[in-house]
Amino acid sequence: MQIVRTIADLRSCIAAWRAEGLSVGLVPTMGGLHAGHLSLVGEAARRTDRVVATLFVNPTQFAPNEDFDSYPRDEAADAAMFEGAGAALMFAPAPEIMYPKGHTTKVIVEELGAMLEGEFRPHFFVGVATIVTKLLLQSLPDVAVFGEKDYQQLCVIRAMVRDLDIPVEIVGGETVREDDGLAMSSRNAYLSAEERKVAPVLYENLRLVAAGERTAEEASAYLLEAGFSSVDYISVRDAVTLLPEMNPGRPARVLGAAWLGKTRLIDNLAVG
Amino acid sequence: MQIVRTIADLRSCIAAWRAEGLSVGLVPTMGGLHAGHLSLVGEAARRTDRVVATLFVNPTQFAPNEDFDSYPRDEAADAAMFEGAGAALMFAPAPEIMYPKGHTTKVIVEELGAMLEGEFRPHFFVGVATIVTKLLLQSLPDVAVFGEKDYQQLCVIRAMVRDLDIPVEIVGGETVREDDGLAMSSRNAYLSAEERKVAPVLYENLRLVAAGERTAEEASAYLLEAGFSSVDYISVRDAVTLLPEMNPGRPARVLGAAWLGKTRLIDNLAVG
Repeated sequence: MQIVRTIADLRSCIAAWRAEGLSVGLVPTMGGLHAGHLSLVGEAARRTDRVVATLFVNPTQFAPNEDFDSYPRDEAADAAMFEGAGAALMFAPAPEIMYPKGHTTKVIVEELGAMLEGEFRPHFFVGVATIVTKLLLQSLPDVAVFGEKDYQQLCVIRAMVRDLDIPVEIVGGETVREDDGLAMSSRNAYLSAEERKVAPVLYENLRLVAAGERTAEEASAYLLEAGFSSVDYISVRDAVTLLPEMNPGRPARVLGAAWLGKTRLIDNLAVG
Repeated sequence: MQIVRTIADLRSCIAAWRAEGLSVGLVPTMGGLHAGHLSLVGEAARRTDRVVATLFVNPTQFAPNEDFDSYPRDEAADAAMFEGAGAALMFAPAPEIMYPKGHTTKVIVEELGAMLEGEFRPHFFVGVATIVTKLLLQSLPDVAVFGEKDYQQLCVIRAMVRDLDIPVEIVGGETVREDDGLAMSSRNAYLSAEERKVAPVLYENLRLVAAGERTAEEASAYLLEAGFSSVDYISVRDAVTLLPEMNPGRPARVLGAAWLGKTRLIDNLAVG
């Protein structure tokens, strides 16, 4: 696996593959890799000839009070995992490569990007949409794979790609879970042993809401009772528009975000 | 010259050229064509093998009180002029092709897009940046040509292309002027015979400011005295950042916008 750090080197590697007639898949990540990320690399490898995995902790999607500084960083470990999963190239740019002095352009997905996560983290989807646009235009892949774990992010990226006519197919990769149901997440590393035992209660409650056996309000109460410090939202939404108005016959999704001590966990499931 | 109206047809024509190894130039316009637009097509034709000229009156860059409805529209005349200037393809999409139901993504160039024109037309550069991003990603040209007549727009587009890593070279085309110095503009068609006689006073004053023979404030006073109804701004700026702070040795530009009756004219010149 090659490791490149500049946009020019990235484009030159991809151009060489294109000259051979090879297709290209992209898997953007912020590192802190786990089996969930690797399954996305695997999905891209099944669909394309060469997979570019990116490693960049994007500062613009963190608010000043969030965990940018403490976000897990271990490039050597991540590189080994990407290679093991079948990536042909790792793109690991420095912040000044992605945001050189004077960078002021932002991509904003209104409505979809303003609800749910956008309500609690107003900077988040602007940062995500801008960096993902850049990564897609730097590499111009045939396919880019994003995890369903960040379901609203996947919806925002699909809308952005459609609205800006970015020539790429966006593929969602299924959430990978621990044996007890907890969705894999780089932020699970923040949990204490005690919190880790409580964490699967989020998944369990989303599962019961998805099955129609518990309401979103009841699920919130159960989370607090189990030891979660606060619940940002548990909500059943249209699976495409993420609007709260449900239309019969259209797929629905239950999404949740809750705090366990200082760690914020999110998860989601298809309803029914 | 081919005329296409869908993104799929546009991409398929361009893909056929690419398969032959031909390079592609893009000239986005809102129609109302004059010699200035045609010089941009000529510039693109000198630099690339096939020129795509686009014809789309972009609703998102007009405020509700502006001239979207009255903007000059004559597709047959525009098509004939594009063809005469050497365009290989005219892309003339309907509004619902560019902005299908549910379109919510915006591209925002902060700072550069907020000053000067952006102060008087706050919607303008968001509309421009979004539609130009779309046109560039629909066609993925090697080169795109924009007129220096809209100098701040050219600066905004250069910043956006750099910030989002859009793989295209942006070229500025020189302003084409009437014999009396008035910059050619689709909106000159709105001028009465009387106003048309006064209009070149904008150019004359910018020329005197550029030559250091008149200050921006003096130029504003002359415009009002000559019959202009109001002056939005006359300002000398850094030619790249458009900031008012001037650094010795860096190129400068004088930019102006003023109203002649119900018509708003803009123009600009290199200083010195």
